[in-house]
Amino acid sequence: MNDTNYHDSIVDPCMGPLNKGLGAFETPLATSAVKDLHWNLLREDVSLPTAVLYEERLQHNLEWMQQFVAEYGVKLAPHGKTTMAPKLFARQLAGGAWGITLATAHQTRVAYTHGVRRVIMANQLVGKQNMAMISTLLADPTFEFCCLVDSPDGVDLLGAFFQSRNQKLHVLLELGAEGGRTGVRNAAQQTAVLDAIARWKDHIVLAGIELYEGVLKEEADIRAFLQRAVRCAQDLALAGNFAERVTQRPVILTGAGSAWYDVVAEEFSKADIGLPLDIILRPGCYLTHDVGVYRASQAQIQTRNPVARKMRTSLLPALQLWAYVQSVPESDKAIIALGKRDAAFDAGLPLPATYYRPGSDAPVATPAHWELTGMMDQHAYMHIAEGDDIKVGDMIAFDISHPCLTFDKWRQIAVVTPTFDVIDVVQTFF
Amino acid sequence: MNDTNYHDSIVDPCMGPLNKGLGAFETPLATSAVKDLHWNLLREDVSLPTAVLYEERLQHNLEWMQQFVAEYGVKLAPHGKTTMAPKLFARQLAGGAWGITLATAHQTRVAYTHGVRRVIMANQLVGKQNMAMISTLLADPTFEFCCLVDSPDGVDLLGAFFQSRNQKLHVLLELGAEGGRTGVRNAAQQTAVLDAIARWKDHIVLAGIELYEGVLKEEADIRAFLQRAVRCAQDLALAGNFAERVTQRPVILTGAGSAWYDVVAEEFSKADIGLPLDIILRPGCYLTHDVGVYRASQAQIQTRNPVARKMRTSLLPALQLWAYVQSVPESDKAIIALGKRDAAFDAGLPLPATYYRPGSDAPVATPAHWELTGMMDQHAYMHIAEGDDIKVGDMIAFDISHPCLTFDKWRQIAVVTPTFDVIDVVQTFF
Repeated sequence: MNDTNYHDSIVDPCMGPLNKGLGAFETPLATSAVKDLHWNLLREDVSLPTAVLYEERLQHNLEWMQQFVAEYGVKLAPHGKTTMAPKLFARQLAGGAWGITLATAHQTRVAYTHGVRRVIMANQLVGKQNMAMISTLLADPTFEFCCLVDSPDGVDLLGAFFQSRNQKLHVLLELGAEGGRTGVRNAAQQTAVLDAIARWKDHIVLAGIELYEGVLKEEADIRAFLQRAVRCAQDLALAGNFAERVTQRPVILTGAGSAWYDVVAEEFSKADIGLPLDIILRPGCYLTHDVGVYRASQAQIQTRNPVARKMRTSLLPALQLWAYVQSVPESDKAIIALGKRDAAFDAGLPLPATYYRPGSDAPVATPAHWELTGMMDQHAYMHIAEGDDIKVGDMIAFDISHPCLTFDKWRQIAVVTPTFDVIDVVQTFF
Repeated sequence: MNDTNYHDSIVDPCMGPLNKGLGAFETPLATSAVKDLHWNLLREDVSLPTAVLYEERLQHNLEWMQQFVAEYGVKLAPHGKTTMAPKLFARQLAGGAWGITLATAHQTRVAYTHGVRRVIMANQLVGKQNMAMISTLLADPTFEFCCLVDSPDGVDLLGAFFQSRNQKLHVLLELGAEGGRTGVRNAAQQTAVLDAIARWKDHIVLAGIELYEGVLKEEADIRAFLQRAVRCAQDLALAGNFAERVTQRPVILTGAGSAWYDVVAEEFSKADIGLPLDIILRPGCYLTHDVGVYRASQAQIQTRNPVARKMRTSLLPALQLWAYVQSVPESDKAIIALGKRDAAFDAGLPLPATYYRPGSDAPVATPAHWELTGMMDQHAYMHIAEGDDIKVGDMIAFDISHPCLTFDKWRQIAVVTPTFDVIDVVQTFF
């Protein structure tokens, strides 16, 4: 464990008996005690529907990404908003991550409370109570934090607040693409932000440059955007805008969601701004991966990126949903007890992967024609064919697309071995 | 409080300081203590984004629906899956509801633990651990429970399980529509289910008839489906299938989601099966209502239903999301700090309703052309027009469409007065 970015004093969290998708227990129980309960998914010890994390695949993905960034000599601050699971944050940090990226003040507070001591909040910090939350954490001198700014209004609100607390806030200038999301589009907007930072120079410290390339779709556009960020960092280094930052810590240059992190690594790893520089990638979905949007983007990475090709392995889907067949009311339709309450549905519906009839030997692959055709809050419609061997009470494992919106459906997620023994439980904080 | 369906011994629940959308506090706090903290939304005492319930509107809706069912002489078992908020279940029961409807064994356990003693689980009960959960609750003789059956396989699994526990399970025969969701489609399927129940007659008790009409779209089809259910109840009453049930409690005839409950009330309230009969409606979304799918369906109810027309008032939207303007990067685009993590997005995106600049007098209506055009996990894109008075740090209240998938984004929801004082916090259990 890297002791500069993690404070390992967290008590073992408790699982609550009223959360869905677990086995039977009556009072709150330390998650470390779950393995002593000897729950097994195939023995139906767990209430379905449930979400499960596959331990070996998680560990594979964790190591894969750490090796990837090491090859480029860049650092990793995995986006924690994907899982919001502090136990996974701790593993990412223990595995070599530089810090954790988060999206909101609330998420930052959750991470801090669970020991995380280095955070990039990849958003402008807005709102009195949100600023107060961060201010409270900054009272700890071991807590390294920076957030984004993209507007003079935002900087002025931050400057006034942190002046009132007599604190210094480190910020990253966010670059944005026309037609994209947040971030300055042009030189005039950028100058206005820098001028605002200068107005609050005793309380706002420019710490680096940030972008999120995932709003663009074409590799050439993304490379141009990344090169703009490198030039911007070089220009501001020359102009002295990082003068205070470098007295304390390296300047930060950061980008990368889960789809283009290889291109960001290629472009940013070449950057030289003449000052100490931390180049930080922020993918989040690599840890569980999926069989939808991120499998597609990872396949492109495996094709275009020489480092990924050289590694020979790739990321593995490590999160599945298990659910019962609830009804087989028509010869070509089964109803599954799995709904929008349980799984992401915005980037493709869950995909049937394996099925298991309680009491049988082992799960087997589902027929290729089994497919979800719709989901309601608590049910899914699955296309089957007449004569398929499928019955009420059969268990089906579904692969997912979009881990972020699957994690936030579960307060506690079982971690299982390849033989479906539950060996741990991960809590989420959404 | 109706003491036959609620066991009022629940301790005041605690709010956790790590949940999003609340004000500042350091250690778990009883929800009843929140009013002493004097949080006010407009004073920015609460971390945005947040979801808020409007107390007066909630109470109005609660009373409206209770009055509606009273006019028809039918009973109400609100679908609790919508909110999964036991504090709201308690208010619904105190307001006159007969019981609570739930979708899963897990949800039933949550409700029972919080005092609910009469539950319709509007699904077939499937899976060993789920059956075990219900079996444990049935050890309490004051707990009235029934679930659905629609297949001999389901009945056989239930029969074997509850025989092994030496218990009796009350079930409702679920009728289904061709092309719909669960439920028997035809006489052959129905007979097979009844034969299965007969095989397990010491452990499975037929308690009534259930349908969910919301899978159909046309009023005529819905009325025909409802009439089929009444005829089925009459036939089974004549045939003696409810003989054991009526020695204990009335037979149950139940239907109605949130869009067609008036038509169900009209059709079912005429039913006479020659046995004591509880006619039970199960709408869930009426409590908070919305400005999307349910406003549209309620408008039709206000038009077509004489009782609703006579009541003069209608349901009111009682749930909103509040969020900050995060960035105004282009003259026609604002980015809002509100995402798919915070709001339903499957039945229309949230709609800007009012906005408030901190320090100003009061919220005002948003311009009609402000509109969300897309949402990501933690951000929304809002269309604005050049020259609009909108700044980073402004607060915007959004109406929602589809309360179910909004509630499940929040573990604790503030209840506010018309002047935005936080007077209570409602916990959810998803």
